[in-house]
Amino acid sequence: MTKVAILGATGYTALELIKILLRHPGVEITALTSREETAPVDRVHPSLSGRLSLPLENISAKEVAERAECVFSCLPHAASATVIPEILACGAKVVDFSADYRLDSPEVFKTWYEIDHPDAARLGKVPYGMPELFRERIVPAPLVANPGCYPTTVLLPLTPLLRAKLIEPNDIILDAKSGVSGAGRKPKLNTHYPECNENIAAYGVGRHRHTPEINQYLSLAADVSKDGPVEVIFTPHLTPMDRGILTTAYARPTRPISQAELLEVLREFYQNEPFVQIVEHLPATKDVAFTNNCHITARVVGQRVMTIAVIDNLVKGASGSAVQNFNLMFGYDETLALL
Amino acid sequence: MTKVAILGATGYTALELIKILLRHPGVEITALTSREETAPVDRVHPSLSGRLSLPLENISAKEVAERAECVFSCLPHAASATVIPEILACGAKVVDFSADYRLDSPEVFKTWYEIDHPDAARLGKVPYGMPELFRERIVPAPLVANPGCYPTTVLLPLTPLLRAKLIEPNDIILDAKSGVSGAGRKPKLNTHYPECNENIAAYGVGRHRHTPEINQYLSLAADVSKDGPVEVIFTPHLTPMDRGILTTAYARPTRPISQAELLEVLREFYQNEPFVQIVEHLPATKDVAFTNNCHITARVVGQRVMTIAVIDNLVKGASGSAVQNFNLMFGYDETLALL
Amino acid sequence: MTKVAILGATGYTALELIKILLRHPGVEITALTSREETAPVDRVHPSLSGRLSLPLENISAKEVAERAECVFSCLPHAASATVIPEILACGAKVVDFSADYRLDSPEVFKTWYEIDHPDAARLGKVPYGMPELFRERIVPAPLVANPGCYPTTVLLPLTPLLRAKLIEPNDIILDAKSGVSGAGRKPKLNTHYPECNENIAAYGVGRHRHTPEINQYLSLAADVSKDGPVEVIFTPHLTPMDRGILTTAYARPTRPISQAELLEVLREFYQNEPFVQIVEHLPATKDVAFTNNCHITARVVGQRVMTIAVIDNLVKGASGSAVQNFNLMFGYDETLALL
Amino acid sequence: MTKVAILGATGYTALELIKILLRHPGVEITALTSREETAPVDRVHPSLSGRLSLPLENISAKEVAERAECVFSCLPHAASATVIPEILACGAKVVDFSADYRLDSPEVFKTWYEIDHPDAARLGKVPYGMPELFRERIVPAPLVANPGCYPTTVLLPLTPLLRAKLIEPNDIILDAKSGVSGAGRKPKLNTHYPECNENIAAYGVGRHRHTPEINQYLSLAADVSKDGPVEVIFTPHLTPMDRGILTTAYARPTRPISQAELLEVLREFYQNEPFVQIVEHLPATKDVAFTNNCHITARVVGQRVMTIAVIDNLVKGASGSAVQNFNLMFGYDETLALL
Repeated sequence: MTKVAILGATGYTALELIKILLRHPGVEITALTSREETAPVDRVHPSLSGRLSLPLENISAKEVAERAECVFSCLPHAASATVIPEILACGAKVVDFSADYRLDSPEVFKTWYEIDHPDAARLGKVPYGMPELFRERIVPAPLVANPGCYPTTVLLPLTPLLRAKLIEPNDIILDAKSGVSGAGRKPKLNTHYPECNENIAAYGVGRHRHTPEINQYLSLAADVSKDGPVEVIFTPHLTPMDRGILTTAYARPTRPISQAELLEVLREFYQNEPFVQIVEHLPATKDVAFTNNCHITARVVGQRVMTIAVIDNLVKGASGSAVQNFNLMFGYDETLALL
Repeated sequence: MTKVAILGATGYTALELIKILLRHPGVEITALTSREETAPVDRVHPSLSGRLSLPLENISAKEVAERAECVFSCLPHAASATVIPEILACGAKVVDFSADYRLDSPEVFKTWYEIDHPDAARLGKVPYGMPELFRERIVPAPLVANPGCYPTTVLLPLTPLLRAKLIEPNDIILDAKSGVSGAGRKPKLNTHYPECNENIAAYGVGRHRHTPEINQYLSLAADVSKDGPVEVIFTPHLTPMDRGILTTAYARPTRPISQAELLEVLREFYQNEPFVQIVEHLPATKDVAFTNNCHITARVVGQRVMTIAVIDNLVKGASGSAVQNFNLMFGYDETLALL
Repeated sequence: MTKVAILGATGYTALELIKILLRHPGVEITALTSREETAPVDRVHPSLSGRLSLPLENISAKEVAERAECVFSCLPHAASATVIPEILACGAKVVDFSADYRLDSPEVFKTWYEIDHPDAARLGKVPYGMPELFRERIVPAPLVANPGCYPTTVLLPLTPLLRAKLIEPNDIILDAKSGVSGAGRKPKLNTHYPECNENIAAYGVGRHRHTPEINQYLSLAADVSKDGPVEVIFTPHLTPMDRGILTTAYARPTRPISQAELLEVLREFYQNEPFVQIVEHLPATKDVAFTNNCHITARVVGQRVMTIAVIDNLVKGASGSAVQNFNLMFGYDETLALL
Repeated sequence: MTKVAILGATGYTALELIKILLRHPGVEITALTSREETAPVDRVHPSLSGRLSLPLENISAKEVAERAECVFSCLPHAASATVIPEILACGAKVVDFSADYRLDSPEVFKTWYEIDHPDAARLGKVPYGMPELFRERIVPAPLVANPGCYPTTVLLPLTPLLRAKLIEPNDIILDAKSGVSGAGRKPKLNTHYPECNENIAAYGVGRHRHTPEINQYLSLAADVSKDGPVEVIFTPHLTPMDRGILTTAYARPTRPISQAELLEVLREFYQNEPFVQIVEHLPATKDVAFTNNCHITARVVGQRVMTIAVIDNLVKGASGSAVQNFNLMFGYDETLALL
């Protein structure tokens, strides 16, 4: 049994993580932290009634590390990188849900997050927790940066095409649509039911914080020595549903190419991956809701290659990936609790 | 042209009221108040872009009364009855959306609202703004108490049956289902999109504040000297939609009665009413969405009479009724701006 | 490994059943039937892409029985009882999702379903598949009648109160609200998205086919020799969400009783049940979505006892219960694949 | 009073049209046709209860033309162009909701609609019913081709930019999101509530029939003698809401340009238009729901110009525009019944 703790256990990603971990035969949840709540967790999340009744506790990083071999941090950015160094120093491993360790450059972090990074020295040494692309680096790592939800729907379809040099790295448009749970559990006007129900709108146009993470890992996939760093156009939209992200990507092929060839490249790249399915039909977010799967297709329209990828933002886009990383880091079967 | 002002213009009932008034050929909106916002109203409500750009202002009751012949108060309970006396004293008429003047008894008000009434002397003298039942009292009134949304779906179907002594007044169960806009525009956890989407739950069981208002007007409709005051069982449920209330009422007939007879009594009662339709089919909230209509049907099941009534909670349940009252108070055709 | 087959595998309950069975370590799915489709099942249900690709087949009952030790029948009423006798004769066990074996009386069946029962001789001998109430009869049974979704939300809260003689059996009103998946996968106007989205309406008032099943098992729980058979008032409503049923029940107590006492009776009755949670708060359908749980609370309002129960209609209301029954019939841990 | 008739009155655009016309002081509805229904229209559309009870009739084009000065055709493509010539020959004017008269070329029509055009000789002579762009041609026309819903969200934002030569005509990507009512009232699996609720998916990728209409009118706006005909990439997505279209357009500027300049060009172009609002904020479909308005904004992101436009697909995208055209054709104030 591996003892695990969750920092910031009142949010939606933490709730989803708890539900997955309760199905994991190798895991015991030993601590749940919150700075605001002290009730049993099933009072805050009534869906846990009869399933888990651990108290939420406002305890120190050190206390957490003493109780757990693996700590999942669901804290906000900056807060996460403030406590993680201490937890690592105590010998526990960490899967971090925040953006703190996803970027390699403290300067890029500062540009997008508008604060100095609390643990800048560690940047560039933390593997990005997308097992389909970086499995070997994740297995031995004490700390893994769990990816953002949007980047998952971009990097999985486009990385194989960039590595195969089938699309131009410098003319990529990403039009993404997300359910509302991605905005978190704190009530705000734009996620108030009568505001976002029966409504669709773009937000964060040109300045969403998942952009640098997408640029960094698409640059890695492409030959940036030749083309310069990738700079995508990324437009997220808020969609009236709980869960799901669908990202429609528009890229320019480097040579004439068919839909069949694109699908074949993708299929071969992911042939042994349990959680990525390349499909012929146009995938829908509902097809992957409440699963750790990513469905991807590709099309050729006019002078463009299009990919469409769908995930459940709370599972493959957050807590499912986190458990996938945990399984790798602790020697469990990668799919445990995730099928 | 009648000059009108709206107190508390940032909420949903105020927005709906503005949209109705913009279609009213006899109305000029001259003031919109808010204690928190000072922006033009179309900044707060983008749906008014290009339609109305009056600033929100934090002005006194006196200043409001100077600019308007009719003041619509969308303030919360207690706040409303604190400013209305001064407005009336200045000579303006008032339609009050709050619960402050709906109850006749200061004691009942205190029991349910847990504060002393700020203007207790006026209670019992203010007509209840349901024209189908109290039209003659509304026409000459300087102040009208606009009904609650739930009571509208109860009093319209049950009043004719109680007056005709077809149902027992003391065994009435009301099971109501409402859209989320009824909870107002202030973000809270229970109206946060990911909480109430894909969800239905009861709330305020046995203690919803519309209960005394329902009891008072059902008692008036029944022969309470014989049966004692009506005390309904009223259970509201929050339903994942923007607008609409459907109330299913279960009552005991005083004698064997058929569905046809029930519908006939209702049809006759409302035969000249433009906004009440007695229908044979089972009505749906969508049938009356964005209208000032109330659709009502009746059924006999086992030993019970059932009525089902639907309205749009923001129109017939609030702002549409308010304009209907305004039209009566100022001598306009009752249906103006409402068809 | 137990070999299982599913009859009528294109519907929503079958899809949910497949997803649960794919997580069951003791089950191998060997046949999926359909009279209309012959594609691989993941073409009909894209959410199964990469998870199950068995073909849908139009095969005889005998062929099915040769391939499976347990057959789940998701066929419509009458169709189910036409093929089940043959399957049983071949030695396979059956969990039947239809209403065919739920009622004891062929006459009552004919009254509500308007056809002669195809296998009337077996009526009255088939256990009702609600393990919390009839576990001992289910364990050895070759055929189990899986309960209707609505009855589950009625029988679980009210049976303990009737057995304890705390409520009158002859004055029960049931106001139920269901998500749309309960209406099945066949497109119809009343479940067309623009018709039922943003809408709530009652349907089947006084004549829903789950009524006789509710009456039969409430009568069993009550002392009907004294009071005569139970006849409830049952009103279902269609609610704009995928999943979930909430039933608000109104009953008359046999003596003055407190909420605490009611909750205590329920808690004691279900103290060892893994899938029934008695809660203090007002439960919401979302609390049990995608789980096999039933959350129940009770209240005393005026002269009435109220219970509120919530389930996921596709899980505890159908496929989850079916697997719970399967586990009992085949000697697996009752909770296997269901936590 | 102008007598009007509606062909194909059972669908959603016809229902919306009826509701608008009921508020029009200069209109009398004299005939409603259907090939399948003969009930009073309020039986088919219960929201018309108490408002309109005309029977649906299966009558000939000639009979319709005898009863109406203006005929709105809500028939499907091909069906519309089969009856319209006869109606015009009788002297009535027509607003056609179908695609039949939107394209200038019978060949292009055949390519996209896969049938020979029933009235090819008239193509190229019928004004496109977008008053903001083609008002002078609409006023005297006996027949107007009401635009498609998607093209409205493309042509209104991009035409001014193309005319001003601020964007390249040959690199335009259109990512559109629509509510479900756009798919019509006929139940199908992909618009069955449990299929499209909580779901987003692309459809018709690269082959949606609004594409040629978009290409034709963007070509007209651009200098196609130089650049050749416009061929956009157009990707529609189905979004879980009743109403609304949001189209995000990505174009390449012809020279460096600022957001302020883009907005200024748009503002000047539409300065006198009552139904087009250029907004600074990111518009949401809800801002224009149930109105005839189109809200548009523009952004510069990286090397791209973006426009975002929102409409209500049933109003500005169909029936509102139709009445706007009717008002122009019959000399009414253009905004009558539409504010």
